[in-house]
Amino acid sequence: MAHQCVVVLVLMKERYFDDLKVGDRFKSESLRVTEKKVIEFAHKFDPQMFHLSRKDAERTIFKGLVASGWHTAAITMRLFVQTLNHAKGAIGLGVDKLRWPNAVRPGDVLTVETKILDMRLSRSRPRYGIIRLRNVTTNQRGEIVQTMLASAIVRRRLRRRPLTTDRKRTGRPLRKSKRCEDISHSKRIRRKTRP
Amino acid sequence: MAHQCVVVLVLMKERYFDDLKVGDRFKSESLRVTEKKVIEFAHKFDPQMFHLSRKDAERTIFKGLVASGWHTAAITMRLFVQTLNHAKGAIGLGVDKLRWPNAVRPGDVLTVETKILDMRLSRSRPRYGIIRLRNVTTNQRGEIVQTMLASAIVRRRLRRRPLTTDRKRTGRPLRKSKRCEDISHSKRIRRKTRP
Repeated sequence: MAHQCVVVLVLMKERYFDDLKVGDRFKSESLRVTEKKVIEFAHKFDPQMFHLSRKDAERTIFKGLVASGWHTAAITMRLFVQTLNHAKGAIGLGVDKLRWPNAVRPGDVLTVETKILDMRLSRSRPRYGIIRLRNVTTNQRGEIVQTMLASAIVRRRLRRRPLTTDRKRTGRPLRKSKRCEDISHSKRIRRKTRP
Repeated sequence: MAHQCVVVLVLMKERYFDDLKVGDRFKSESLRVTEKKVIEFAHKFDPQMFHLSRKDAERTIFKGLVASGWHTAAITMRLFVQTLNHAKGAIGLGVDKLRWPNAVRPGDVLTVETKILDMRLSRSRPRYGIIRLRNVTTNQRGEIVQTMLASAIVRRRLRRRPLTTDRKRTGRPLRKSKRCEDISHSKRIRRKTRP
């Protein structure tokens, strides 16, 4: 019972920019792709014969029903969001080298592995950092079904101080917005983003 | 009534690789993004506060509900598929430089403009060609909400010949699979892909 509680706490932990470092790896839970969901997604977003009907798909280049690449991408986002659980969310800036080397078929069970490739502070938004990551999505046989590089803005950890006056300088009360202090300690990152 | 029929026929026309040329541009119909659909997509694929609830989203960096970038990408695919209407479908090979320069909000009406950037014949699959394209998705104010480059495999047009014998060579009946003849006439493309 105690063990279960620990697992839940670990899963629910919110992550800030400061909790990550280059080279960190995360593995998601897994998610089963059903025929019903493949067809439902295709009807809404990718109405092509190899995604829409098992029978029609047999006469296509895939010789059977396959999920839309955009469905795989959306499932990957779902697993990524659950795994990283960024405090205040992760805002996607862009994606590169999105590839689908193998088709996803009904019954496949997908897992996403995330690797943090690079990190820098945001110049325009001091409360945020920008992470660069690689997501690799695999099926139950370990075959890669999607790879991508992505950049996202994530929140930095800020600690509220009990101080309400700027003692060292003037002794005057601080403006409310200055009562939060940045507690990022990564010198490497600071140097990298200094103009 | 006659005018309506023409419009339907034009919309339903299937396109082959041979019907396209570099520089061709296509503009999709438009699609309205509703609050209900933004939230529904987010619950399934991108459960973050700025996509899930109008109230919670007001306290985020977006100051209101916005669609997931993957929802915008999926809508773009829907509009692209409807517009190009590739015979036997378009199979996505990969996407690059997927960017979301402006947020999509409930009530926005999206349109996709496609430009064919490059074309080549498939070396491994003689019945197919590979197109490289750029998709730009805009809202009702003309603001760009998504840009991307993509490569896709599309079917080449093949014409069935009445011939059932290989007269020039042996006079023997042809195997069924050889009764189709390639009618692509693009010398430029042929030269480009010759080893």
